[in-house]
Amino acid sequence: MKRYSAAEVSLLLPDWEYSNEGIEREFKFQNFSEAFAFMTRVAMLAECADHHPDWKNSYNKVHIRLTNHAEQALTEKDLLLAGKIDLLLMGK
Amino acid sequence: MKRYSAAEVSLLLPDWEYSNEGIEREFKFQNFSEAFAFMTRVAMLAECADHHPDWKNSYNKVHIRLTNHAEQALTEKDLLLAGKIDLLLMGK
Repeated sequence: MKRYSAAEVSLLLPDWEYSNEGIEREFKFQNFSEAFAFMTRVAMLAECADHHPDWKNSYNKVHIRLTNHAEQALTEKDLLLAGKIDLLLMGK
Repeated sequence: MKRYSAAEVSLLLPDWEYSNEGIEREFKFQNFSEAFAFMTRVAMLAECADHHPDWKNSYNKVHIRLTNHAEQALTEKDLLLAGKIDLLLMGK
């Protein structure tokens, strides 16, 4: 499976930060209800992709980290899920 | 508002661990779907109580930390929410 570098990530997913074989992004919403609504939509994307985030939430903030635990690397699965999350936020 | 000590927590909520002015507990499920279903129920409890957890999830594991950010202490709001989460897990 192809592995991705920090340079490739910054080109493909400019809103995500490469960190230690994974990519991360923090999302901020108006309140908890909006943050958790977003998490619910991401949960469904993740379940359908059979690829799940490491994530945390505190009130209106959601921090998502994506990495491929099985491969111990950043792989296409992570980039695809990140791309879907970005599209979801754009209302697409 | 009354503040609670580690000793009181261990009596009232034996499954939770007192840590740095808060209480924490890790929950483990069969898979992501079950873990997120639990999170959805906790999210509704939290929203109704207007008291929200700091929490993280990784596949089948959910880690919840409760503290009163406004009071910078462990207060009754935390204990009440923890009690409701415990009841939910007991199917009550």
